[in-house]
Amino acid sequence: MSVDAVGTVRRGRGARKATRQTRDITMLPALKRKLPLTEPMSPEQVEKIDAASMDILETVGVVFRDPIALADWANAGAKVVGETVYLDRALVRELIATIPETFTYHARNPANNLPFGDDHAIFVPMTGAPYLRDLDDVRRNPTLDDLANFHKLSHMLPAMHSSAHHIVEPYDHPISQRHLRITYSSIKHSDKTFMGMTTSPKNAEDVLDMAAILFGAEFMETHAVVTGNCNGNSPLVWDETMLGAMRAFCRRNQPVLCSPFVLGGANTPASTAATVAQLNAEALSALAYTQVIRKGCPAIYGHYLTTVSMKSGAPMAGTPEISLMNFMIGQMARFYGVPWRTSNTLGGAKTFDAQAGYESAMTLNAVLMAGANYMWHSAGWNEAGMHCSMAKFIVDAEMCAMGYRMAQGINWDDFDAALSAIPDVGPGGHYLGHPHTLEHFQKAFFMPEMFDNNSIEQWQAEGAVEITERALIRARDMLNEYEEPKLDAGVNEELLDYIARREREIPAADALNQEY
Amino acid sequence: MSVDAVGTVRRGRGARKATRQTRDITMLPALKRKLPLTEPMSPEQVEKIDAASMDILETVGVVFRDPIALADWANAGAKVVGETVYLDRALVRELIATIPETFTYHARNPANNLPFGDDHAIFVPMTGAPYLRDLDDVRRNPTLDDLANFHKLSHMLPAMHSSAHHIVEPYDHPISQRHLRITYSSIKHSDKTFMGMTTSPKNAEDVLDMAAILFGAEFMETHAVVTGNCNGNSPLVWDETMLGAMRAFCRRNQPVLCSPFVLGGANTPASTAATVAQLNAEALSALAYTQVIRKGCPAIYGHYLTTVSMKSGAPMAGTPEISLMNFMIGQMARFYGVPWRTSNTLGGAKTFDAQAGYESAMTLNAVLMAGANYMWHSAGWNEAGMHCSMAKFIVDAEMCAMGYRMAQGINWDDFDAALSAIPDVGPGGHYLGHPHTLEHFQKAFFMPEMFDNNSIEQWQAEGAVEITERALIRARDMLNEYEEPKLDAGVNEELLDYIARREREIPAADALNQEY
Repeated sequence: MSVDAVGTVRRGRGARKATRQTRDITMLPALKRKLPLTEPMSPEQVEKIDAASMDILETVGVVFRDPIALADWANAGAKVVGETVYLDRALVRELIATIPETFTYHARNPANNLPFGDDHAIFVPMTGAPYLRDLDDVRRNPTLDDLANFHKLSHMLPAMHSSAHHIVEPYDHPISQRHLRITYSSIKHSDKTFMGMTTSPKNAEDVLDMAAILFGAEFMETHAVVTGNCNGNSPLVWDETMLGAMRAFCRRNQPVLCSPFVLGGANTPASTAATVAQLNAEALSALAYTQVIRKGCPAIYGHYLTTVSMKSGAPMAGTPEISLMNFMIGQMARFYGVPWRTSNTLGGAKTFDAQAGYESAMTLNAVLMAGANYMWHSAGWNEAGMHCSMAKFIVDAEMCAMGYRMAQGINWDDFDAALSAIPDVGPGGHYLGHPHTLEHFQKAFFMPEMFDNNSIEQWQAEGAVEITERALIRARDMLNEYEEPKLDAGVNEELLDYIARREREIPAADALNQEY
Repeated sequence: MSVDAVGTVRRGRGARKATRQTRDITMLPALKRKLPLTEPMSPEQVEKIDAASMDILETVGVVFRDPIALADWANAGAKVVGETVYLDRALVRELIATIPETFTYHARNPANNLPFGDDHAIFVPMTGAPYLRDLDDVRRNPTLDDLANFHKLSHMLPAMHSSAHHIVEPYDHPISQRHLRITYSSIKHSDKTFMGMTTSPKNAEDVLDMAAILFGAEFMETHAVVTGNCNGNSPLVWDETMLGAMRAFCRRNQPVLCSPFVLGGANTPASTAATVAQLNAEALSALAYTQVIRKGCPAIYGHYLTTVSMKSGAPMAGTPEISLMNFMIGQMARFYGVPWRTSNTLGGAKTFDAQAGYESAMTLNAVLMAGANYMWHSAGWNEAGMHCSMAKFIVDAEMCAMGYRMAQGINWDDFDAALSAIPDVGPGGHYLGHPHTLEHFQKAFFMPEMFDNNSIEQWQAEGAVEITERALIRARDMLNEYEEPKLDAGVNEELLDYIARREREIPAADALNQEY
């Protein structure tokens, strides 16, 4: 707010603009990691996992519940018995060799394009929550407006590299048509990269058609503009829905996340090393299939990974074995030269409490040190993915910014200049007024805005505002300041026409969306 | 509770004993790390820090505000000008060369002895809190009974390797005599290792006399039984109180933590690398002095490390630079072959909220991956150390147990057996009933007891108990089940006699205890 000459408080566009100008919403470039990775396996142990996975593929085989895939595999020279495909290790190696190690993941704003793979990494918000905790921390079913709010925040939070897709499930629109509105919301409210729904082969085609309106079909033939996730059914099964969506993406040369869905101990052996061997076999089978569909198309080694409490059957996160398996999977993906996706900030807390904080930070550290390229579910995840928390979304994004800084490693640039301050100040002095400090303090040490480090007296004097409310105040402020990134009017109209046509064609009832 | 033949509920010793038998309070052995450490500096960069630190010691010098130390340094061949000691790098290297790389840290129960240094690591509770959040989460000044409760919990929590000393400040006893009661409480309520107060040279002598009653003076001549922390005043100052306490410990061959007290950006340059160079110079100056006092006595490279918010002046924790500096300091300590101490789970949250969880987990990860040998402040710390939270104490201890498991690395023992379950189960099956799972699930995946991973419906049906209350219920249960580890009656009497005599001799008023 500002105060005019006669002392009247003026609020409004001008005041909001003033605030806006002070908040930097420029996206951080794709992280380029400099911190060494955590690699707990020796080269021999990496080969041990590889050999175990290849044995599984050759002798146990993988079930592809999909006649097209089975025919594709037979044509590609694999042994097919019923629905089981037995994959020779030589064939697997030959196929995955054509997966690009790196590519550029394009955004509609080229300033937000992301180099992908190798030592680059990106943060992508959570998706798929059937509930949200909203701007008042109330848990309820989400709407398209809620989804738009998450897309707006994704656009404004510097450490978020994508608007993802259905961060929350918009319940106010028919399931069968939702993918259209979700995709439009991702595109419209943010000019960062986005994800494509893969809830059915037809839905995937719709997403790809909309991407083609935005980027041009020809451009997509040679450029990655939208990622699609395909989950496996562990152990060792891929189903028709996912395989159909995978084919849609691969045929248009768009990157697919090949993601076994692992509940460690329930659908894998009760062993970290053997779980990784199975998961690795599953990922390899899908990665290989992407190259059967289209040789050279981009593909991403993926997984969704929890361990299961043998007391309750509940999925667990932030546990030591999740960290260890992430480290191992990172080594396997690099061994094959394939970029990889993991899940960040998972947890099972019911509220945005200390448990949520512990779990998220443990996972964030693990996936950073594991060298993941695509850190999905990086903001908002809570309650085992059952809700996306608006407050946690904001705080997670700041934690990602801190993780980003850590992974950039040590800054040596001003080492000599900084050292020269030491004799200036001398024993017993202080650095607060030193020119080097004045010049560098803003960049030298990260100052988290969502953490309150003041004294309890000061905190109480300011109303004893808890972190959930601090984050929700921030979310409301940001949404007030939000400015939509300009979308070409012609493109916008074409997208809306497409949606209108498809909504006429698609009956307003369908199976439930399921994707993780 | 149990129900007798006529249905009457019986509570009491028998029932409590039954519960007690189900909780495993066996201390985890000192962690032996197998996970590779995070080492962001090249050998050349380590030498760059070393050279910068040595330049500081030679040309800027270190102030020792203590006539005895100044005389000792002059005798040792250092250049002394006023209170400033200029330390030649050859002298520093020669002195620190005699610090033992490893030793055994003895507990009164030999089963709780700890191998120390190298790839071993121990978790030590927080100390020094002027407030606690108690069993009802009420923030207030602590008493000796509160302190005893923390010592009891330290004794029972498997991941805690020490009862430390004044986890909280007991305000119901005169300051000048507190160190006696604190030490007695540490020794009496736990048979793990403990720490010695260093609030003055005389207080340190009292602690060492009490340790001698427990272990024998002669035993102490060749065995480490109590650690003392000595803080520096950064930049580059050591004061008389700390140096006097240091001499007391070194003379009896007990390990001293040489801990510069760093508020990054305020008492060091606004640069991570230059901050480490200064901190390293400070630590080296004190480590070298321990060997002037007594050649070959154990000593520990220490530090207390925060960064300062340049907006508010508040100390910050869980920030990326704290992690990076821990990684660097670990490399420096290993370069010199000296075991090292860091601070774990620091944070500035006012309640046990998501901020506390994030900060603690970020720091836990950093200090584990940095390879610290002595992880002080591993449980209870909150509000920048102003309070110790009973609830957080319990949860932190479980987080340490999870960090412990992670740092042990991958278990390959049953890899082949676990793999053989995969063809048994086959594509689309599940592992829950498989013999391998039944045999291994309890050890395969950590099941945190303080994290609730059930569905929200189940959580609500059970009363929607938040993590703070869950942890406090656990704390109350444990305190009910507590059994004091037997202390020899003669030793106990001798300790009480010593305290009675010293309390007659020491006036019941003194300066405030200050130690961090």
